[in-house]
Amino acid sequence: MPVLYTPPTADQLRAVPGVRLGTAAAKIKSWARDDVVLILADPGTVAAGVFTRNRFCAAPVIVCREHLQRQHASGAGLRALLINAGNANAGTGDPGLADARAECIAVARMLDCAPEEVLPYSTGVIMEPLPLDRIIAGLPAAHAAARADGWFAAANAIMTTDTVPKGASRQVTIDGVVVTVTGIAKGAGMIHPDMATMLSFMATDAPVDAPLLAQIVRAVADVSFNGATVDGDTSTNDSFVLAATGRAALAPLRDPADPRVALLRGAIEACAVELAQAIVRDGEGATKFISIRVDGGRDVEECKRIAFGIAHSPLVKTAFFASDPNLGRIVCAIGNTAAPDLDPAGVSFWLDDVLVVDHGGRSARYREEDGKRVMQQQEIGIRVALSRGTAAATVWTCDFSHDYVTINADYRS
Amino acid sequence: MPVLYTPPTADQLRAVPGVRLGTAAAKIKSWARDDVVLILADPGTVAAGVFTRNRFCAAPVIVCREHLQRQHASGAGLRALLINAGNANAGTGDPGLADARAECIAVARMLDCAPEEVLPYSTGVIMEPLPLDRIIAGLPAAHAAARADGWFAAANAIMTTDTVPKGASRQVTIDGVVVTVTGIAKGAGMIHPDMATMLSFMATDAPVDAPLLAQIVRAVADVSFNGATVDGDTSTNDSFVLAATGRAALAPLRDPADPRVALLRGAIEACAVELAQAIVRDGEGATKFISIRVDGGRDVEECKRIAFGIAHSPLVKTAFFASDPNLGRIVCAIGNTAAPDLDPAGVSFWLDDVLVVDHGGRSARYREEDGKRVMQQQEIGIRVALSRGTAAATVWTCDFSHDYVTINADYRS
Repeated sequence: MPVLYTPPTADQLRAVPGVRLGTAAAKIKSWARDDVVLILADPGTVAAGVFTRNRFCAAPVIVCREHLQRQHASGAGLRALLINAGNANAGTGDPGLADARAECIAVARMLDCAPEEVLPYSTGVIMEPLPLDRIIAGLPAAHAAARADGWFAAANAIMTTDTVPKGASRQVTIDGVVVTVTGIAKGAGMIHPDMATMLSFMATDAPVDAPLLAQIVRAVADVSFNGATVDGDTSTNDSFVLAATGRAALAPLRDPADPRVALLRGAIEACAVELAQAIVRDGEGATKFISIRVDGGRDVEECKRIAFGIAHSPLVKTAFFASDPNLGRIVCAIGNTAAPDLDPAGVSFWLDDVLVVDHGGRSARYREEDGKRVMQQQEIGIRVALSRGTAAATVWTCDFSHDYVTINADYRS
Repeated sequence: MPVLYTPPTADQLRAVPGVRLGTAAAKIKSWARDDVVLILADPGTVAAGVFTRNRFCAAPVIVCREHLQRQHASGAGLRALLINAGNANAGTGDPGLADARAECIAVARMLDCAPEEVLPYSTGVIMEPLPLDRIIAGLPAAHAAARADGWFAAANAIMTTDTVPKGASRQVTIDGVVVTVTGIAKGAGMIHPDMATMLSFMATDAPVDAPLLAQIVRAVADVSFNGATVDGDTSTNDSFVLAATGRAALAPLRDPADPRVALLRGAIEACAVELAQAIVRDGEGATKFISIRVDGGRDVEECKRIAFGIAHSPLVKTAFFASDPNLGRIVCAIGNTAAPDLDPAGVSFWLDDVLVVDHGGRSARYREEDGKRVMQQQEIGIRVALSRGTAAATVWTCDFSHDYVTINADYRS
């Protein structure tokens, strides 16, 4: 079990009225475990998603985008998600696309719904043909096993190189009604794209219409999953889908300015941030969790670029692994990603409460032992102030250890 | 000694008429070795350079840019370069800038020239004050030691974490006159920015005027040093300066279209490519040398972006270390850096002569054992064809090994 993340217990993942989850063992790889998840949503459920921007995106991502678009266009809802672990169905060309469509057709037949009401997810090795027959053969068992409290089992069945299952729940009272948000996630898209996929599914029983849901899912992804990185590799399969079953006895949510939306969004964002951080904390070989905040920027993009520049530098990451306050490496990473017109004399940075660089130069108060003290912590905060605007962004990453090399060099051997 | 690069012998680095090099031990760090180099150029020498784009560029980089600009504006020439290893004079603010200027003034006094005819270089740890007094105290010894065949000693004295000295020479006959190009380089700017610096100095006795020299240095850097990467970290001190002493008995070179310029440029480029590759071959922990060519692109920038995307992916690099043909990782890296309008169906890639991906999908002819065979080589070529234009770019990188983590985690401890 990783030192940086404590997985949820089964009873901490609360049921979402209108959603049931079942798992089955389809032997996608030669392992003895459940590796297929069928998520069933009651009629009336709407869904929205955000997906990888990788140009070699997986076949299921292409089909998910198509089906969500058709659902929104036709007013049809979401009835099921089918997830398999062990094979990404990515880099598989036209046959892979046909396989992803065939999965949806098989589920639709079983549930008596339209194929476009089904979304396929795959996660695992890239460039291997999907074992379609074994997945379809596993469907009846997954269907029979579906239950409202199946979240924990589902979180386990979607794992690949994850060491622990990841899930989060929040409840929020809106107009006197308790609304639930529960989500699960796996892997860490940017950690190991060959086991492809940052993948998350989240549901709420709040009644949210599709356009608003799409808006929420994009905004939440930007401040959660899109801020998580281990090594900067965005996988071919990254997907985050949010479903709203509408089973809570609330008047429908349609207007982004409705104050009830902020309450719901807060709960969704809290779940998503917890899951995104869980992915980093369970990052391959991670021994430290590092939170990087860049503020005072001209725009959010500038802040993100610099924060990711620090988060992706192997030199910064190995220094964290060694608990070595070799902080010139952070200065270098900032300088590498800063806009050409950024004045270094405006830049300061802190390691937790320790001011290291004060307006472009080493702080007169900085002492090596203070840096060393912070670097030895398991959780470390970096703050960079650019002093030229009001934008800010936060990203999370982990350190770079011998175990990272071992895990990634030895994975297939 | 690294397995991937054989350093030159002293006599392979040919003297360039008009240039002498001397070294001295200034004890920049607590080591017993020469760590200061003084390079003297005869009157009439012109120089041009390209420098890091890191916003936190080092003080000597700022002074080099200023002095070259003044040399070009006033028609003054280059008389000397002063290089120290062990301290980067970067992240040192205004005091660091004053130190870099003071170095030039001290050399100018000794040689009876103007300070702007002197260029300062520093390479080493970031954010430590430069030991100016010790450097100035070492000047007379370096001056007394200066000799035309001092290139090899200089290549040794500028080393930091390099395991071997790096140098290259070419001779080319132009109008019946033998012209020499010799250069040295150190480190690998993007490998270890805390020991800051890809640094190269190259000289020729060809008579080249300053505007043409500036054009040549930019063009050559683009196809040599700018294509070398180990981990994507551009240091605060990266510098490449080319000097032309004009001592060869040739009519002056001024016109880029002059066919003699192509001959000279060829020799300069060959030296620069050899030095750039030497830096990668001596990369920290490197066990493999990987050459990545992307062609059929819309423009060079697109090709470089994709080539660097592959070269910087820790997942690709650990797979090379393991000799594991886990080639979905390369597909993923291409997809991550490709432009949004790139059609994956146009993309093919080869591992040496083995076609892996054929127009967007796994090649029907691809066999795992063929991939495995190539991955076990010490030198590996990747070719990506984008099939939508005529632009191409090549970059070089090395694999990512346990030793990389060890070297960078343990460096200061």
